[in-house]
Amino acid sequence: MFVILCYDVGVKRNAKVKKLTRKYLRPVQKSVCEGYITEKNLNRLCALLKDAIDPAEDAVAVYRFASNTDFEKDAIGLARQNEDFIL
Amino acid sequence: MFVILCYDVGVKRNAKVKKLTRKYLRPVQKSVCEGYITEKNLNRLCALLKDAIDPAEDAVAVYRFASNTDFEKDAIGLARQNEDFIL
Repeated sequence: MFVILCYDVGVKRNAKVKKLTRKYLRPVQKSVCEGYITEKNLNRLCALLKDAIDPAEDAVAVYRFASNTDFEKDAIGLARQNEDFIL
Repeated sequence: MFVILCYDVGVKRNAKVKKLTRKYLRPVQKSVCEGYITEKNLNRLCALLKDAIDPAEDAVAVYRFASNTDFEKDAIGLARQNEDFIL
């Protein structure tokens, strides 16, 4: 499936969440990743994120699609690609 | 149409972009908004954002769908709603 994952987490947990999400998905903005992922890997990633965040403070939203043809995407300003990011 | 809009802009332009996006869409995270919007209003919002951002520094991604039934959404941690935000 194709996934867009957005996170909004406290500064202390940001590096950990960034590392976890970028292990499975490609970054498109500082706190937004997207990409194809298997259900098994998504479940794994969600479990890891659940452990890494503070549920009282942090938010992670996962939008799931059958494929990346289910939507249209426009960019204003920078359209960041994988190569702009150093993990 | 239904839209998810994510932005990643410099500190100086953040308040302006926040205000513009929240005029048309509901915030779901600090830099993520979503909601139904007409094509006319989306074009207006995109034009305003284009003027507000620094295209060499900032990124705005707009994902467009026919409706919010085109995807499934899961939340880990906080599932922020409109009322959590003061515009």
